Amino acid sequence: MPPGGSPRVADLGELALLERIAARVARAAGVAGAAGAACAGLPPGDVVLGIGDDTAALRWTPGALVLATTDALVEEVHFRRATSAAADIGWKALAINASDIAAMGGVPRYAVISLMLPGDLDAAWVDELYDGLLEMAGEAGVAIVGGNLAQAPVIVVDVTLLGEVAPERLVRRTGARPGDLLAVTGTLGRAAAGLVVLESLGCAPDDLALGRLVAAQRRPRPRLREGVALAETGAVRAMIDISDGLLLDLWRLCEACDLGVRLDAGRVPVDPGIAAAVAVATGGVGEGSQRALGLALAGGEDYELLFAVAQEDTDRVLHGLAEKTGTHATLIGEFTGHGTSRTIVDEGGQVRPLDPGGWTHFKGDLR
Amino acid sequence: MPPGGSPRVADLGELALLERIAARVARAAGVAGAAGAACAGLPPGDVVLGIGDDTAALRWTPGALVLATTDALVEEVHFRRATSAAADIGWKALAINASDIAAMGGVPRYAVISLMLPGDLDAAWVDELYDGLLEMAGEAGVAIVGGNLAQAPVIVVDVTLLGEVAPERLVRRTGARPGDLLAVTGTLGRAAAGLVVLESLGCAPDDLALGRLVAAQRRPRPRLREGVALAETGAVRAMIDISDGLLLDLWRLCEACDLGVRLDAGRVPVDPGIAAAVAVATGGVGEGSQRALGLALAGGEDYELLFAVAQEDTDRVLHGLAEKTGTHATLIGEFTGHGTSRTIVDEGGQVRPLDPGGWTHFKGDLR
Repeated sequence: MPPGGSPRVADLGELALLERIAARVARAAGVAGAAGAACAGLPPGDVVLGIGDDTAALRWTPGALVLATTDALVEEVHFRRATSAAADIGWKALAINASDIAAMGGVPRYAVISLMLPGDLDAAWVDELYDGLLEMAGEAGVAIVGGNLAQAPVIVVDVTLLGEVAPERLVRRTGARPGDLLAVTGTLGRAAAGLVVLESLGCAPDDLALGRLVAAQRRPRPRLREGVALAETGAVRAMIDISDGLLLDLWRLCEACDLGVRLDAGRVPVDPGIAAAVAVATGGVGEGSQRALGLALAGGEDYELLFAVAQEDTDRVLHGLAEKTGTHATLIGEFTGHGTSRTIVDEGGQVRPLDPGGWTHFKGDLR
Repeated sequence: MPPGGSPRVADLGELALLERIAARVARAAGVAGAAGAACAGLPPGDVVLGIGDDTAALRWTPGALVLATTDALVEEVHFRRATSAAADIGWKALAINASDIAAMGGVPRYAVISLMLPGDLDAAWVDELYDGLLEMAGEAGVAIVGGNLAQAPVIVVDVTLLGEVAPERLVRRTGARPGDLLAVTGTLGRAAAGLVVLESLGCAPDDLALGRLVAAQRRPRPRLREGVALAETGAVRAMIDISDGLLLDLWRLCEACDLGVRLDAGRVPVDPGIAAAVAVATGGVGEGSQRALGLALAGGEDYELLFAVAQEDTDRVLHGLAEKTGTHATLIGEFTGHGTSRTIVDEGGQVRPLDPGGWTHFKGDLR
């Protein structure tokens, strides 16, 4: 251990690293001691066994479905140690999974964290990773109940998240019908613009508006309350979260529903802060609004919810969402029949084929 | 794609790779088509949504606890592509998780598979990995209901497994009392001896006895029926599966129960086939029985169950286990009080401190 520094993972060893993690998780839950209560944000009574046994053991709400999803962040693919804070990576690793639960109308509950770590990594990095995981866990009401530690040449933070939903509230990807309207929560392009800012400046900006975009990139906020509120209307026929960009995730929704779609580009809620990011990147030269629209259409990592509603239910659903959560959703298109084309109508009224983008490549993230 | 060869993962792309996996999973379940039924070995009615949505959605047995565990196999740490068949890696990745469920007295039910893959990997490797996963899933009654694909410099097969158990049947690591007897299922040292054989010969042996050891290393069989049978006796006070070797996992059991132990080395059920493996490795020279005992004590990866029983229940428990499963368990020691030492009595009657081995190092696997 370097003087005054953090021990390396390999020096610390398994027992000490696991105890360090368990203590951190227990502390976050405001509970001293018992491993069975080592969880954050939930009544410990539901966690029969947390970290420290062969498996976690969890009481389940009678009748509720178990939702299960997994998603990983990989060093040098999804993040770099030099430019991403460990706490942000922890936050994001859990947030992107929580977003998948939200897209089903569910409530996230329990996470297991599988870490692959290089032996020469500072243990302090793992501490900070858990700080971020636990912050997000606290916001989302998630208990971290178990995990695994293994050695690997690069860091992998692999999260499996369990959520629950009443069977009648489950919203699938399938279920939209021709004529249903397409809506999206919030604004789009924030996270991609944040990345543009970081890559242009090489550091986080002092400017508050730009900082908001960077925060969207580093600490996405899954639409948990919105997912539940939309499911509770009983009128959302299909839903997906936007992880890989509007165009690609819309394509996935259409594939799942076996429908065509007409996306109205002029209605897409481009985040108003993006223009400033584009100006930073281009020095204010060029067609900023087209670039901003491009980020909103294809940028990804906004974790907004994209959903289908019958025309007659639209007002009730959007109004109810705003009432319950304060979040606005925007109508951006209409589903068309099986076998019809998938098109995007640009701001000039020109109709073009909807191109989901680089999705046939084995890119870093393959959701 | 090379002529007649397999496409690489990066050439195939996400959609095709995911479809390939989903089709394989669906085929294994004997179900054509619907993504919601894409599961192996279980009534599809319990899998409301399998592969293909944002999350899996699963019906849960009312009142049953949810057991959740995760464990990963990492290339160059737990296996090498050149010497391990992909199907064996798939089998093992699921088997080691199922063993953790068995150690709680539970029944494994649903798995999500998170794969990290180098872009230049042959897609055929992934096919074979899934063949092995699905073989184990079929044996264990597990449905593969979801997963994730991401790029990485080395292969990581990270499995999260959900199981269920009635609350009154849950067996923890904690709960043994002073005077309880320590028992272990089956025989020990097989898997470690199999590794010795592989490393000595550089290939799988033709010899059937040696082949049995190699199979134990490559395709471990979790003690699923035994775990349930032991839990059903209601008399097993604590249990753990032996993944990292008897000494280390016994140490963990003692730590969890806050007890001492006296392990009788002469009673440890050393697998009778090990002697042949040791002879291969040493050319028949040296103290074979001591080496065999060493493999049985510290070898790991046997996935036998190690458990505590009150003295008065011992006959009933061991007899019941043999009746129900045909599996013999052996008494190998006795728990002693809080604060007492943990010792091993060797075959000459000499008492030595129990040394759990290299467990303070950050080794490949950190369960």
